Amino acid sequence: MSSPTRLVEVRQNVLKQNDLLARSLRLRFEAAGVFVISLVSSPGAGKTTLLEKTLTRLRENRCRVAALVGDLATENDAARLARSQAPVKQIITGTVCHLDADMVQRSLDDWSLYDLDCLFIENVGNLVCPSSYDLGENLRIVLMSVTEGEDKPLKYPTIFNTADVAVITKMDLAKAVEFDLPGAHQSIQSVRPGMDVLQLSAKTGAGLDGYLRFLEERIESRVAVGIK
Amino acid sequence: MSSPTRLVEVRQNVLKQNDLLARSLRLRFEAAGVFVISLVSSPGAGKTTLLEKTLTRLRENRCRVAALVGDLATENDAARLARSQAPVKQIITGTVCHLDADMVQRSLDDWSLYDLDCLFIENVGNLVCPSSYDLGENLRIVLMSVTEGEDKPLKYPTIFNTADVAVITKMDLAKAVEFDLPGAHQSIQSVRPGMDVLQLSAKTGAGLDGYLRFLEERIESRVAVGIK
Repeated sequence: MSSPTRLVEVRQNVLKQNDLLARSLRLRFEAAGVFVISLVSSPGAGKTTLLEKTLTRLRENRCRVAALVGDLATENDAARLARSQAPVKQIITGTVCHLDADMVQRSLDDWSLYDLDCLFIENVGNLVCPSSYDLGENLRIVLMSVTEGEDKPLKYPTIFNTADVAVITKMDLAKAVEFDLPGAHQSIQSVRPGMDVLQLSAKTGAGLDGYLRFLEERIESRVAVGIK
Repeated sequence: MSSPTRLVEVRQNVLKQNDLLARSLRLRFEAAGVFVISLVSSPGAGKTTLLEKTLTRLRENRCRVAALVGDLATENDAARLARSQAPVKQIITGTVCHLDADMVQRSLDDWSLYDLDCLFIENVGNLVCPSSYDLGENLRIVLMSVTEGEDKPLKYPTIFNTADVAVITKMDLAKAVEFDLPGAHQSIQSVRPGMDVLQLSAKTGAGLDGYLRFLEERIESRVAVGIK
């Protein structure tokens, strides 16, 4: 059975192509002065809800924002995000379980990056595959919701290792699901020591101010926590 | 850029190999009289919690059960499932985001299938990739928790289309997250009309009796809802 070996080889080629493209995207973002933030998480961790609030609030503070949002099917998320009044584009991936740099590049064809301060990229809900694909972003945020359990970082270490910041979401449900917050922090730190961890509830708004301050500082200084 | 095309070609070869192996596994399961049930869901939907209760309760009813559980890293889930006293084996997939038939086959090397009535296979938490890999199971159950949102079936249609039964989990949290139950049923039916849908809370036990009755009937009759 030679197929699995060939699969790995070819996959590495694709990844290499992706890295080259991501690098050119990153240079293009830098030249246009736009800071790019991507969001990864499992399905249902609250990426879209958080992003909708983020876009709305950043716009109120006169930050020029836009968003790309990846999904296998449906334009539901783009419709939700469009309520923020920010420019939003959906990337339908079909059966592909992650975004790649080529999809991002093609989505930007008719947008002028020079009119933006910050571009958000919401990846497909998946804790595995998106970790391998550099999208040219400056900051990668991994979300985990309290309903997923404290040991997710231990079980999906690569996605935490390739992210710059972790955000624990749905804190309003922490009590109902008996979430072990110290345990979660311990899991994250054991996988990626020193990682910044924020916690919030997009529903109640708790922690949202701190999260937005964190983003605004990064956007203003155009300096990523873990610049690639 | 010829790589993406080659990737698809090679991937189809791997999938074909997997289908052949899955078919031989299915014949082996049938010959041994063991009914095989797989569980798929996003990370944190409650597969392990539900499976622990399932193994415990089925054992009490003198059903001879065992479980294989897939994860990228850690043996946490196997440790949790072992509390049921049923034989449990962890399959560590490394960076592979799904189980395949070969991993299942190799895990069964030192188990006598003739001593089992039912084998559970808990897949890696992922709503995309596991849908493409037949594991030789008789029944595939897709779990979605109320915290993930009603539109998951629309956004991840393939995993619902390749499953035989949908189980809505964490019903105890439905009110707290304002879960739209009719909306969820509508999403499921629009993706897979006529699909059996069960709802339960492994935490409070609500709906668990119905779920177990459903499984026991299938195990006893050795007839899958959507036999492949």
